[in-house]
Amino acid sequence: MEKIVERSILYDFYGELLTEHQKNIYEDFVLNDLSLGEIASDNNISRQGVHDLIKRCDKMLEEYENKLHLMEKFNFAKANVEKIHSLVRECKVSGDMRLIDDVEKLSNDILDNL
Amino acid sequence: MEKIVERSILYDFYGELLTEHQKNIYEDFVLNDLSLGEIASDNNISRQGVHDLIKRCDKMLEEYENKLHLMEKFNFAKANVEKIHSLVRECKVSGDMRLIDDVEKLSNDILDNL
Repeated sequence: MEKIVERSILYDFYGELLTEHQKNIYEDFVLNDLSLGEIASDNNISRQGVHDLIKRCDKMLEEYENKLHLMEKFNFAKANVEKIHSLVRECKVSGDMRLIDDVEKLSNDILDNL
Repeated sequence: MEKIVERSILYDFYGELLTEHQKNIYEDFVLNDLSLGEIASDNNISRQGVHDLIKRCDKMLEEYENKLHLMEKFNFAKANVEKIHSLVRECKVSGDMRLIDDVEKLSNDILDNL
């Protein structure tokens, strides 16, 4: 996954565990796409300070995921619900009831992993 | 929800964010159902020390949930996947294809909230 996408997803899960200051800087960099120089100037800190803070936040967010694996579990559930959704639409169009067996199996897989 | 059940669910989500020492004591109390006195004696600390540690862990786990709401999101997804599962079984037994519409709606609701 592209680093910027991975960062924004991890932030979406665990961002609330950062301090307000960390959140502001991290959001400017990851979500608002500001440069290190712009953020440094806006917050009256050094470019190196911004760089270090972002690295530290990256590490914290990754550690939360390494410990909790909640993003991984969510992604699994989401991918399987999306499959259910498209199978159900296919079933409605084709009238092929055998697809229902696949939906049943997928819902079992999700419940086993939640 | 009963306090002991709520504790074990919160621990299941966020327990890995506690230290090894906190985890050992909390598990003995919440999962293994030992008394404060037993835990105190096993770990060579005071009964009050065990009590305070459990209170502190309760607070930490509750704060993680208050910030992240991941248990809440999981429970929503799980309840709806369970509904899908039982609708699909009903559909197979009765052959009533209208139930498929409900499955489609539920899968949409889950995706909107994940």
